[in-house]
Amino acid sequence: MAQKPSTPKGTRDFGPQVMSKREFIVDTLKSVFRKYGYQPLETPSMEFLSVLAGKYGEEGDQLIFKIINSGDYLSKVNGIDFADPELFKKLLPKICKKALRYDLTVPFARYAAMNHNELNLPFKRYQIQPVWRADRPQKGRYREFYQCDCDVIGSDALINDAELIAIYDEAFTALGFPAIRLLFNNRKILAGIAEIVGSIELLAPICMAIDKLDKIGEERVKEELAVRGIIDSAQEAIFRIITFSGTNQEKLAFLADEFAESEIGLSGVEEMKEVLSLLQYFNLSITEVIVDISLARGLEYYTGSIYEVKAVGVDYGSLGGGGRYDDLTGIFGVNGMSGVGISFGADRIFDLMEMLDLFPEQSKASITAILMNFGGVGFVASLKFLKQLRAEGISAEIYPEHTKMRKQFKFADRRNATYSISIGSDEAAAGTVKLKNMETGEQQELPIDEAIELLKSS
Amino acid sequence: MAQKPSTPKGTRDFGPQVMSKREFIVDTLKSVFRKYGYQPLETPSMEFLSVLAGKYGEEGDQLIFKIINSGDYLSKVNGIDFADPELFKKLLPKICKKALRYDLTVPFARYAAMNHNELNLPFKRYQIQPVWRADRPQKGRYREFYQCDCDVIGSDALINDAELIAIYDEAFTALGFPAIRLLFNNRKILAGIAEIVGSIELLAPICMAIDKLDKIGEERVKEELAVRGIIDSAQEAIFRIITFSGTNQEKLAFLADEFAESEIGLSGVEEMKEVLSLLQYFNLSITEVIVDISLARGLEYYTGSIYEVKAVGVDYGSLGGGGRYDDLTGIFGVNGMSGVGISFGADRIFDLMEMLDLFPEQSKASITAILMNFGGVGFVASLKFLKQLRAEGISAEIYPEHTKMRKQFKFADRRNATYSISIGSDEAAAGTVKLKNMETGEQQELPIDEAIELLKSS
Repeated sequence: MAQKPSTPKGTRDFGPQVMSKREFIVDTLKSVFRKYGYQPLETPSMEFLSVLAGKYGEEGDQLIFKIINSGDYLSKVNGIDFADPELFKKLLPKICKKALRYDLTVPFARYAAMNHNELNLPFKRYQIQPVWRADRPQKGRYREFYQCDCDVIGSDALINDAELIAIYDEAFTALGFPAIRLLFNNRKILAGIAEIVGSIELLAPICMAIDKLDKIGEERVKEELAVRGIIDSAQEAIFRIITFSGTNQEKLAFLADEFAESEIGLSGVEEMKEVLSLLQYFNLSITEVIVDISLARGLEYYTGSIYEVKAVGVDYGSLGGGGRYDDLTGIFGVNGMSGVGISFGADRIFDLMEMLDLFPEQSKASITAILMNFGGVGFVASLKFLKQLRAEGISAEIYPEHTKMRKQFKFADRRNATYSISIGSDEAAAGTVKLKNMETGEQQELPIDEAIELLKSS
Repeated sequence: MAQKPSTPKGTRDFGPQVMSKREFIVDTLKSVFRKYGYQPLETPSMEFLSVLAGKYGEEGDQLIFKIINSGDYLSKVNGIDFADPELFKKLLPKICKKALRYDLTVPFARYAAMNHNELNLPFKRYQIQPVWRADRPQKGRYREFYQCDCDVIGSDALINDAELIAIYDEAFTALGFPAIRLLFNNRKILAGIAEIVGSIELLAPICMAIDKLDKIGEERVKEELAVRGIIDSAQEAIFRIITFSGTNQEKLAFLADEFAESEIGLSGVEEMKEVLSLLQYFNLSITEVIVDISLARGLEYYTGSIYEVKAVGVDYGSLGGGGRYDDLTGIFGVNGMSGVGISFGADRIFDLMEMLDLFPEQSKASITAILMNFGGVGFVASLKFLKQLRAEGISAEIYPEHTKMRKQFKFADRRNATYSISIGSDEAAAGTVKLKNMETGEQQELPIDEAIELLKSS
């Protein structure tokens, strides 16, 4: 019985048109990462569930895809109360030891911890791999999607924090974006705010709440703060600070005043100033760096600089983000490896580049030459010509069947070929080829050598 | 509590040294595939279990990694006999709807069947992605590994079969192999053998048995044939034919004689002759094509040409293989899409290239310049120089901390940098840089412009 095939929801096939553009994004990012000294790393798709569990909050744990143990996965399970309505939760860790990675950061921390004795520190790595989340699929949100991360671990020098902003600038420039906005803040500033409105213990709840400001608005953020035990006057103080408007310098001067009593807040201001000052040596091309006191980022492990990047002129949300973390490897027993990293959201970047028509012509799936198949001596002459083209590095193929010319030209047209090439018995005898420019329709007959030169230059 | 981190057995981290070499392999294959007109495709890591189950034999089914349903995976399970020792088997399809792909061929067939109305046929695609098998890990066998496939579907012209041999030749040449051996056979020849020794029904058992000839030897293959009901005289006939030695032409002439009564056998011989004849137009560089009547390949879906490729001069097994299949999409309800494809075993190729020291120098993880960090005006001058280098496309980084020079040089050495660059206050004032060739130890001081020229050319 034939099956009607389909793919699981939230997953996608990437056909040639899409793949060529995705490869343009990935290749661009890779070449920038490499130029800045970042080195490639890949980690396994599956990690032990114990490595991933508890790293992404309770909600995150539920979104991790788990792999059932091979063979008789029930053989070592005993003492189960099959009437227990929570059985599925209790059974899970017994029948699933492995899971699919949820992001690239925890596997990187696991790798760095496992190899910290051998790593040549500071270690700069990039990693471009899919991750999986059992999220409800919706527009722009998938269950399998690519993350493109670069991180440097083993150095707390702020030159790293500045350089990552330069990488965003260079990468988005190379991708063809006309302008980006980099929102910049520091967790120590948020810690300072927590300290002066009550206690540094409030840092996590404050970050969690104001991270949602864009989505749910001020009133509901205040409700969340109230739920977390933050009183009205503290809420007002928080909003007075995070909504302060002015230039970057005015904001930092304002914060320095506010943080007269907060050492950690002041050190956040100093770090921000130093990073902004170092940026002068990177001559950013398209990036406006904006100090955004309300930027919090959701993840708990950030401890210093935090970033978020957006396109300018479109209302599109974040294209990437990142930050500094002082102790990510601590969960794996290796302390004192401070790191800082950023992520590019390849799927969101792809969608926006499509929307803004930013993909360059050469990133569209195409081929230089498609040779028509006339059979007989024309076929033989075409195969010889094909060999010469490929030896010159020119992408080319021959239509494999000797069939109707109309069908072959239609194929070449749909295939997005630059030229179709016809070598029939006449051309074979004359040592020439007929080229048809598939865009303009212009045709010409040229000696073989000249035809090769023309194709090389196109 | 800190966890001692590790990775699941049969999986691997690929650090920078390994990744750079793997990228060399993948980039080389991609560029050959593209030149021959193959286009990229990626399919999701997870497929419905129903798409994968039953496609790889009973043993294969057990090696598929299954993903447990999200949420309360037991909620829709009822009427279970918990005392049933086979419970784990019966429960599995109810609690696991999705699984990780086992190869790239079935997902490609699923894709081609889903999209056959939109595909511009013949459709040539390449696909380079990991696959997962719950096999017992051993040397050279992993639970997560990359397959690199190229296939053309929707054409039964034998020029495709010949071209794939040329792709093997060009790819292995580009990878640096001095010589390869391509074993070539045709399932129709094996069908002919089955026919003349008894019945064409014996094709599958004969293929299954002689596929193991290399591993288990003639005696045990005969035992397997006997188990499958093939009598002694038929066994003798099979071995007389498959062990016939001679040149390719002698073998094909011998087979033509043997197949006087087998139409399918003769058509296999004709197909082989045509493919070998077409090869003259591809001028193979390093490939010896050997007609190997004993080549069977394990997979059931092959119906025409079959290939296997090995390195010459080392006893190392197969580096890839493939063949023609007339009805792979039939399982998904779309008939009449004949295809032919080959696969490169990236992990085996990697291991052998390491063994034979075939990786070119530039495929080893490295960086052109590492700038020492002297702090103060030297640091500022270094950052300006760094910006210039990167603008020229030169990979470079600065040591982020102003620390002991010995530590910084050691870092540059371990990082495999071509040059270390020193700009202290003297050089900053003079507008010069000091370059140290990290391999030879040679040092020189050059004006900035000359230093950039030197680094560009290295």
